Amino acid sequence: MQLPQRAVICEVGPRDGLQYESTFIPTERKVALIRQLIEAGVRRIQVTSFVHPRWVPQMADAEEVCRRLPERDDVIFSGLALNVKGVERAHAAGLRYVDLSIATHEEHSQANANMSVAEAVRQAETMIRLAHHYDMQPQLGLQTVFGYRTPGDTPLERIRELARRFVDLGLESFSLADTTGMAHPVQIQEYVQAVQEEIGDTPLVLHLHDTRGMGLANVLAALQCGVTRFDTSLGGLGGCPFIPGATGNIATEDTVYMLEAMGVRTGIDYRKVAELALDLEALLGKELPGRQTRLLARQRTLSSSACS
Amino acid sequence: MQLPQRAVICEVGPRDGLQYESTFIPTERKVALIRQLIEAGVRRIQVTSFVHPRWVPQMADAEEVCRRLPERDDVIFSGLALNVKGVERAHAAGLRYVDLSIATHEEHSQANANMSVAEAVRQAETMIRLAHHYDMQPQLGLQTVFGYRTPGDTPLERIRELARRFVDLGLESFSLADTTGMAHPVQIQEYVQAVQEEIGDTPLVLHLHDTRGMGLANVLAALQCGVTRFDTSLGGLGGCPFIPGATGNIATEDTVYMLEAMGVRTGIDYRKVAELALDLEALLGKELPGRQTRLLARQRTLSSSACS
Repeated sequence: MQLPQRAVICEVGPRDGLQYESTFIPTERKVALIRQLIEAGVRRIQVTSFVHPRWVPQMADAEEVCRRLPERDDVIFSGLALNVKGVERAHAAGLRYVDLSIATHEEHSQANANMSVAEAVRQAETMIRLAHHYDMQPQLGLQTVFGYRTPGDTPLERIRELARRFVDLGLESFSLADTTGMAHPVQIQEYVQAVQEEIGDTPLVLHLHDTRGMGLANVLAALQCGVTRFDTSLGGLGGCPFIPGATGNIATEDTVYMLEAMGVRTGIDYRKVAELALDLEALLGKELPGRQTRLLARQRTLSSSACS
Repeated sequence: MQLPQRAVICEVGPRDGLQYESTFIPTERKVALIRQLIEAGVRRIQVTSFVHPRWVPQMADAEEVCRRLPERDDVIFSGLALNVKGVERAHAAGLRYVDLSIATHEEHSQANANMSVAEAVRQAETMIRLAHHYDMQPQLGLQTVFGYRTPGDTPLERIRELARRFVDLGLESFSLADTTGMAHPVQIQEYVQAVQEEIGDTPLVLHLHDTRGMGLANVLAALQCGVTRFDTSLGGLGGCPFIPGATGNIATEDTVYMLEAMGVRTGIDYRKVAELALDLEALLGKELPGRQTRLLARQRTLSSSACS
């Protein structure tokens, strides 16, 4: 099996993971988590989202989180922006990397962003130009690439068109999101190879959710196509409150474990990440799905019961 | 990606899935489950285990389950036997397929079977000969092939030796079990290819557990090596009571979903399997980990809340 020697994990737990958690995590706790993630070896972190606090109260402290970020030249901090104002805020907050994200399915675009895909595309183009104006590095991500209502309901040709169009504007990276967790490995390879033809040297990022348990199988399929960048969240945090039972991103600790076991270096200590996820569970008052986190929880139970 | 056109799922829920459940499932409920699995398209089922009821009370009705099996020439029913007496009981119960299973790690063999691996191997040889004497089709499975305490702690050369030795006696199939859920995709391919060299035309079965979330990634890796037989359990039932939090077999509904999505035909309706798993949850009084089962549960919650 031909696999890359290294992969880069972008930890999105502080943003995608926490955004819909009803327990507000204090800013200092968020910043502590970011520091601990760095100590565990993570070198790319999506730290917050510049959205209106009315929609996502958890991210109301975006500027404050950025202000308190550790000064680390070796770590890339990015923030999510969904409109021009978000890019301006990210710039003002001192971030050099900004992640943009648009829907690809009309129904999803209307429901999530109250605009058509065509409008979202035009807005994203403006945002990319603004990011360049600010000397920021933009990533552009497409949502529900592999299916919204049903697998493949956005035609691959449409994804290719969007990839071509955006990459021509100059992107730090281009991301494909399996927002609904519908992708399967054969589809991953088909879409990845098609998009790779369009984007050339621009790095491709996969943002996978594990709703149907195929998350790590999809990582494997993508690695076999040469993909080396993955968004993950500690503990497998995440999931939409409007879809009870929806699962989050693929878990950082599980992805790192598999990659390292297969000889693909990440520089991350999966045990430390699982420990952070366990700490977060205590704060959130619920179990997280990450398997290494569950294994660690069970080892601790066994250790303590062995003492009694 | 080169994948086989078809795969055969052996449902092991009635045995491996239920064996350690503390709620005794009435015999008629077990037989009903087996009938329903057949209706869902399953054509191979490990229906019970011929072990002493003192060790596994759930399987105390092994003979009665076999007596009540539907008469279906198109379905293969097998039972697990761990000693000569078990093979005799399986034969007396009218089964034509018997699954044998031995430990490969000394510590595991002593703990589980109170004998050395060498003794277990000799006993299994006797059992295979007895199965042939009874005109039964024996499957021989090796446990903890990919790791017991640590990944790869049983040398691959040892697995090859055992494969060669047993296949020479004549097996219906040869099975590699990842009892601890430690296998990763690269290791799966290395071991599978090595064992395929030893066993030639004898079908290879993979028996995977999903403890570290790599179950479906391992299925994908195995498919790429031409493996077409997998043991799975509905709902992802299973897990050892001595290891709290241990997870069960890969879930039938999730495995089938991925296979069918990738164009690998199984003949099984994953939705029907998920419905059976949900029914079983109600009986067991706990949630099962199968993702399609969780999705179905959530859809039902949404449907009912939409009515209120």
